[in-house]
Amino acid sequence: MIKRQKYGDEIAKAEILIEALPYIRKFSGKTVVIKYGGNAMIDCKIKRMVMQDIVLMKYVGLNPVVVHGGGPDINKMLEKLNIKSNFVNGLRVTDEATMNIVEMVLTGKINKEIVSIVNELGGKAIGISGKDGGLLKAEKDISNGDIGYVGKIVNVDIDVITMMLDKGYIPVIAPCAIGPEGKTYNVNGDTAAGKIAEALKAEKFILLTDVEGILTDVNDKNSVISRINFDNAKKLIDSGIIKGGMIPKLKCCINAIENGVKRAHIIDGRLTHSLLLEIFTDEGIGTMIGKECFDDDNL
Amino acid sequence: MIKRQKYGDEIAKAEILIEALPYIRKFSGKTVVIKYGGNAMIDCKIKRMVMQDIVLMKYVGLNPVVVHGGGPDINKMLEKLNIKSNFVNGLRVTDEATMNIVEMVLTGKINKEIVSIVNELGGKAIGISGKDGGLLKAEKDISNGDIGYVGKIVNVDIDVITMMLDKGYIPVIAPCAIGPEGKTYNVNGDTAAGKIAEALKAEKFILLTDVEGILTDVNDKNSVISRINFDNAKKLIDSGIIKGGMIPKLKCCINAIENGVKRAHIIDGRLTHSLLLEIFTDEGIGTMIGKECFDDDNL
Amino acid sequence: MIKRQKYGDEIAKAEILIEALPYIRKFSGKTVVIKYGGNAMIDCKIKRMVMQDIVLMKYVGLNPVVVHGGGPDINKMLEKLNIKSNFVNGLRVTDEATMNIVEMVLTGKINKEIVSIVNELGGKAIGISGKDGGLLKAEKDISNGDIGYVGKIVNVDIDVITMMLDKGYIPVIAPCAIGPEGKTYNVNGDTAAGKIAEALKAEKFILLTDVEGILTDVNDKNSVISRINFDNAKKLIDSGIIKGGMIPKLKCCINAIENGVKRAHIIDGRLTHSLLLEIFTDEGIGTMIGKECFDDDNL
Amino acid sequence: MIKRQKYGDEIAKAEILIEALPYIRKFSGKTVVIKYGGNAMIDCKIKRMVMQDIVLMKYVGLNPVVVHGGGPDINKMLEKLNIKSNFVNGLRVTDEATMNIVEMVLTGKINKEIVSIVNELGGKAIGISGKDGGLLKAEKDISNGDIGYVGKIVNVDIDVITMMLDKGYIPVIAPCAIGPEGKTYNVNGDTAAGKIAEALKAEKFILLTDVEGILTDVNDKNSVISRINFDNAKKLIDSGIIKGGMIPKLKCCINAIENGVKRAHIIDGRLTHSLLLEIFTDEGIGTMIGKECFDDDNL
Amino acid sequence: MIKRQKYGDEIAKAEILIEALPYIRKFSGKTVVIKYGGNAMIDCKIKRMVMQDIVLMKYVGLNPVVVHGGGPDINKMLEKLNIKSNFVNGLRVTDEATMNIVEMVLTGKINKEIVSIVNELGGKAIGISGKDGGLLKAEKDISNGDIGYVGKIVNVDIDVITMMLDKGYIPVIAPCAIGPEGKTYNVNGDTAAGKIAEALKAEKFILLTDVEGILTDVNDKNSVISRINFDNAKKLIDSGIIKGGMIPKLKCCINAIENGVKRAHIIDGRLTHSLLLEIFTDEGIGTMIGKECFDDDNL
Amino acid sequence: MIKRQKYGDEIAKAEILIEALPYIRKFSGKTVVIKYGGNAMIDCKIKRMVMQDIVLMKYVGLNPVVVHGGGPDINKMLEKLNIKSNFVNGLRVTDEATMNIVEMVLTGKINKEIVSIVNELGGKAIGISGKDGGLLKAEKDISNGDIGYVGKIVNVDIDVITMMLDKGYIPVIAPCAIGPEGKTYNVNGDTAAGKIAEALKAEKFILLTDVEGILTDVNDKNSVISRINFDNAKKLIDSGIIKGGMIPKLKCCINAIENGVKRAHIIDGRLTHSLLLEIFTDEGIGTMIGKECFDDDNL
Repeated sequence: MIKRQKYGDEIAKAEILIEALPYIRKFSGKTVVIKYGGNAMIDCKIKRMVMQDIVLMKYVGLNPVVVHGGGPDINKMLEKLNIKSNFVNGLRVTDEATMNIVEMVLTGKINKEIVSIVNELGGKAIGISGKDGGLLKAEKDISNGDIGYVGKIVNVDIDVITMMLDKGYIPVIAPCAIGPEGKTYNVNGDTAAGKIAEALKAEKFILLTDVEGILTDVNDKNSVISRINFDNAKKLIDSGIIKGGMIPKLKCCINAIENGVKRAHIIDGRLTHSLLLEIFTDEGIGTMIGKECFDDDNL
Repeated sequence: MIKRQKYGDEIAKAEILIEALPYIRKFSGKTVVIKYGGNAMIDCKIKRMVMQDIVLMKYVGLNPVVVHGGGPDINKMLEKLNIKSNFVNGLRVTDEATMNIVEMVLTGKINKEIVSIVNELGGKAIGISGKDGGLLKAEKDISNGDIGYVGKIVNVDIDVITMMLDKGYIPVIAPCAIGPEGKTYNVNGDTAAGKIAEALKAEKFILLTDVEGILTDVNDKNSVISRINFDNAKKLIDSGIIKGGMIPKLKCCINAIENGVKRAHIIDGRLTHSLLLEIFTDEGIGTMIGKECFDDDNL
Repeated sequence: MIKRQKYGDEIAKAEILIEALPYIRKFSGKTVVIKYGGNAMIDCKIKRMVMQDIVLMKYVGLNPVVVHGGGPDINKMLEKLNIKSNFVNGLRVTDEATMNIVEMVLTGKINKEIVSIVNELGGKAIGISGKDGGLLKAEKDISNGDIGYVGKIVNVDIDVITMMLDKGYIPVIAPCAIGPEGKTYNVNGDTAAGKIAEALKAEKFILLTDVEGILTDVNDKNSVISRINFDNAKKLIDSGIIKGGMIPKLKCCINAIENGVKRAHIIDGRLTHSLLLEIFTDEGIGTMIGKECFDDDNL
Repeated sequence: MIKRQKYGDEIAKAEILIEALPYIRKFSGKTVVIKYGGNAMIDCKIKRMVMQDIVLMKYVGLNPVVVHGGGPDINKMLEKLNIKSNFVNGLRVTDEATMNIVEMVLTGKINKEIVSIVNELGGKAIGISGKDGGLLKAEKDISNGDIGYVGKIVNVDIDVITMMLDKGYIPVIAPCAIGPEGKTYNVNGDTAAGKIAEALKAEKFILLTDVEGILTDVNDKNSVISRINFDNAKKLIDSGIIKGGMIPKLKCCINAIENGVKRAHIIDGRLTHSLLLEIFTDEGIGTMIGKECFDDDNL
Repeated sequence: MIKRQKYGDEIAKAEILIEALPYIRKFSGKTVVIKYGGNAMIDCKIKRMVMQDIVLMKYVGLNPVVVHGGGPDINKMLEKLNIKSNFVNGLRVTDEATMNIVEMVLTGKINKEIVSIVNELGGKAIGISGKDGGLLKAEKDISNGDIGYVGKIVNVDIDVITMMLDKGYIPVIAPCAIGPEGKTYNVNGDTAAGKIAEALKAEKFILLTDVEGILTDVNDKNSVISRINFDNAKKLIDSGIIKGGMIPKLKCCINAIENGVKRAHIIDGRLTHSLLLEIFTDEGIGTMIGKECFDDDNL
Repeated sequence: MIKRQKYGDEIAKAEILIEALPYIRKFSGKTVVIKYGGNAMIDCKIKRMVMQDIVLMKYVGLNPVVVHGGGPDINKMLEKLNIKSNFVNGLRVTDEATMNIVEMVLTGKINKEIVSIVNELGGKAIGISGKDGGLLKAEKDISNGDIGYVGKIVNVDIDVITMMLDKGYIPVIAPCAIGPEGKTYNVNGDTAAGKIAEALKAEKFILLTDVEGILTDVNDKNSVISRINFDNAKKLIDSGIIKGGMIPKLKCCINAIENGVKRAHIIDGRLTHSLLLEIFTDEGIGTMIGKECFDDDNL
């Protein structure tokens, strides 16, 4: 026996589902590449929330593709195994022993953890690295001298990803690539995600970071730029307003936009349900980079 | 510039989306036949809400099929046109003139209104009648003597429906059928919906009504039976506990269960978002009829 | 026991089938959009013949698409319901009450009658309006001032038609369209048919009318132009030779040709088996408009 | 300028097309295996008519499959080449030299002539022998002692035929089969056609012969049996009423019916448009053998 | 019981399979058109070897298409049948009687022999002529005056070939074509093969001949040109170095390269396993004609 | 310039390819599950050879599926990380820390190494674990008491494998499974491979081991049983002839045969090209277990 009055809460919730409808419709069938990294990958609770968001995205009709980074697990393992690093010009050299550990932790620990959580939450994830199915081909990146098995991506073959999307799976990708002579190369996760987004002509490329977005004043968390044209974004870099680690992230987004991705986003992965907030609200969160000019392009 | 504190509400909403995930997963790709009638078809606000619920169901991966009834529009039109009805044993005879109006209002007014609303809300509906594509074949129903073009369904050809579902459309069906010599017959909407649910081997067959569900005491709205085994439901009818107009509705549900539908539901269409409440909560609403025995099968 | 001599008649008939072979081959797999209206829609016997012709076309491998008009049923119903029309500049205003009746008669009476006949004759028709599946989008046509819910077509989405053709159905389409705010608009049937023919890149667009074709002298039924180049047709209009109601019909054909339809035809729907005569004879009937110049382009 | 009165003839012809509609509908998509032989293969005019009939059948939606026989060309060629035959118990021995000529004439002359005519008439024929694609496997038929490369069919692999039907081609098949050690065997054309009809679960298996059908009195052409149950047909053979060359033909039909073909027909190929008469008239021509009992089963 | 030492030989063989791997990979899924003629078609042992090579090619993933020539069988048959030829300017006239024999031997003897051998060796061949499925259309070749039914190819419709390749068959094609009025025309086998290779955008077009390749000195078998650019090949013809029957063969190859074939080869069909040597070794055999310039382009 | 005499060697090699043809044909399109483990996984040269064999199998039309084991890498890593194991009844307990390392080495090192080699050799491998796509579901194996995250397989979902095979990939699978509460469980590699072979209804299930096959006398390498019926194999176990580690391997094979795999093989992975020897020779190597009785079933 069920009493009528009890439905009050349920109806309120139903109305929230209905509020989400326009966004669900808008992104139905669209591909979203998510670079998952930073704090969102370390904090257990946030990790689970991000995965819930991704599974929800999948079930309401979007095609999420996850590219993850490395995080502290790699350093911990190197330490435990007492593998010392050499440095050239202040940059750590990824020698073969290091590369082996990097690959092992990326593809055998972090990647499989994500797969576990997604599958436990009801999604169907398949975890691969850029080596599987020839997804990512790299050559040695010598822009900072020879620092070992650090690669720059020279080819992306998305067949393995589209196969998975066609069959309803969520691809989870570790940023390793195959290089000359069959050697494994470590590639930057943000770049890998951006290149994959380009190759997939994704609707959205979302970088989960540990900041609120692009700040015009790094000391003022209220100075987040909501939306910015990609040409204006370049000017921001040239003018020196964007600094430090945000520069390569923003460049990554600019490249993606220039190569056919519709929207790139730099959002705060520490925020609860940041992905859903970005997808299912009008304003979104963090910074959105696009090809068009925005009214409030605030430079 | 976006302030962090403002996300409070949004996050709460995101969490409600996440709460819906297990239900979305559970019914992903499943077919749900909804008999839409009664007050839910008259009250403008509820009508729109029901359609929102159906569009949401579609976008989150279910396959809703709508069968609608007639409602007061038919009588209004008959009156306006001054078409008098003959009665045989107290039953109105559907002569050819009446049948023409019934079909015209059903397929040309009610059906198209539903299509309009669904499409306006972002769904892709196609409105047809049981005559289109040979969906429903009928012969004269003489169980109450010859009362004209009142048919009982003798064949259901779901090709036209599965074609639409495969292409992402929401079929909206008026309960007319093709009879001998190409004549149009009026068929009972509940029965038509039930037969279509059977032919589709639907996961759910939901009857939207103007009551809270099956009541053990028609005067006590708290006497709703939540869940009942279909054999027990038959006994309820035999024992005389179920009375009046609820008998054919319940029989319709029992038939559906016997012919392969997984769950049949009699729910209160007057209730805000009744469909979502049924699909997206554990307890659901109204009465559920199933093949298995339930713990709380309360007879 | 069958006697040999009796086959004489049958053999003669077989030879006629064989005569049709070159035409069947020529149009095998081709799409033909037929605007069905005028007397052919009123006279019961001709109606049935037209539908037979269409079913035959389907079975011998063509893809007929039927767009129908309104006819006298609409006015009769408006009269019966005592709905008075306002006039602006001599043009009747389609207010909401009128529009409701127009839609109801078009989609609930005329459309379903055609479906009934086609299905009875062994075809598999599905009757829809331009609102179903988002087929026709319109906006208010203000070329004659604001005369209410009269629309001009701004978008044609043929997915719903190609889906039906792929599955062997005959689409039967009522000329209603969806307009701003989900309102229904009445659109001209000839124009709707022409636009649909364009969107389908149809082989033929056939207008069934109540005249012999385009006449150079409206008083001389022998002055039919058999074949005319579309540019010459424009000149005929400009020079004033074509008059009255034939002008919009001819413009409709010219537009269709300019937008990719191979042949447009204005034929006499009152003539027995006019469609078959057009398709299955060398000379065809009525007037054919094409992109190329014809030897006998008789201006 | 076209005069109205001239349409009289054309309309009469259109009506004959319309008369054919029920038969076209009835056999739409059905497979018909035709054993083409006898006089119909010798008389140039009849040959062309048969092929016209087959092309028409294809274009109106049936799936004809042609198996042809040998005819006098083989003997003529053997004579010209002065190849003498040995006889065992009065039966000609097909030695290797003979077999080579038989195959060459069957597949290189008769088969290709049929293909030419069909293609010239607008069909798309592909001519193969039972050796192509492993269609027919045979072993030596020793039921009459060892008379050389005369085979009985032990396997039918219809993949090559269904491939062609799926793509709209008309398969034309010469009755050669592949035997042990890759040797070519000659197989009986009627039997080959019957076995292929069985493997295809054909709707009809039609034997074109030089008689009116099965006669109860071989001297009375009016004694044709129109329709006969296959069990009754067996009795006719057992009772000695059927005699001579008709026995194997009738057995062939009986086998086909027993193995899933719906109807078998023995018709008079000398008759103008015999195939169309069979398919497109109610009574058909010649003798029909079926699984059911017929009212007029006239024994 | 198996002794270890016995594997020595087997392992050596396995290593040879492994050696073939790079070539198998390189040509996986690629189409190779083989003109099969000359001595390779006469010598029984070589014939069988060529067919083995072709079956192997098929099973390791290539798509071989065989076009065969006529050889001495035609003349033998013409002689036996005492068909005398007329000559115009020294060229034999192919009159209707001759054409009939040519077609019969080509399609009924040679073609079917090839099919037999391929099928016996485990391949699935289907033998057709250019007339089947409308593959080759020709018109009278009057470049040498009117010498009867000698055609030049004016259209290639590869639908019938791609259908067979898609289903895993090996097409075996006799060089007859359909000409005006449905007449059969004899076309040059090399040209037919080249045109088919062009239409298929084949990876390789291989001409099996009775010479080692293109010789710079016809008297020195060591003067074979291994690889040559197609423009240089033209110069060789213009300069008079290439002589006699090699000129049309080389022109055939040049045309193929100009029309999209990647590589053309003139190889010695008398050589054991010449096809495998060409495909599965680095140097290949005979002469390869390509679009690019080769280091050792030895002019 | 190429000299003729030089082809001697090449022709001999071509003949070996031709020798392989019957085996290639026999196994074309068939699925072969290979359990890759033991010495073949440790010795670098053999590892590469095994992968060459697998890539060759793929290119000549078989569908190899690789399941690998763990090997010494796991223990090495546990040692390096100083993870001590607890023992219960002499069995090592796989606690969470151990399981993490086991998974990391299996999926992040061994699996990816195999993928690298296969891809370098021209195959297209995708490396996954039993957790990806829900391939393997396990529950705690308590047959030896609670020894931690050691699982027995309770469900195999081969969708992810068939998807890869359909697209031409070689699946490489690490024997981890998903267990209750989303925990990772270690499962026996032989068992996992056998269960996967069963689910795929594989043609062959090949266990690469470090012995010559099943020996009737473990001290006599000449006592290998070549072929044995699966029931006889059970008797060998019951009678105590089979001992130690061979028992579970043989049981694995027997189960596979009982559940629809056609042949199971226990072969010596240390032998050069052992897989090719098994597939491409008549006698094969090692021990073959099948459903039928063999002539030389030597008990």
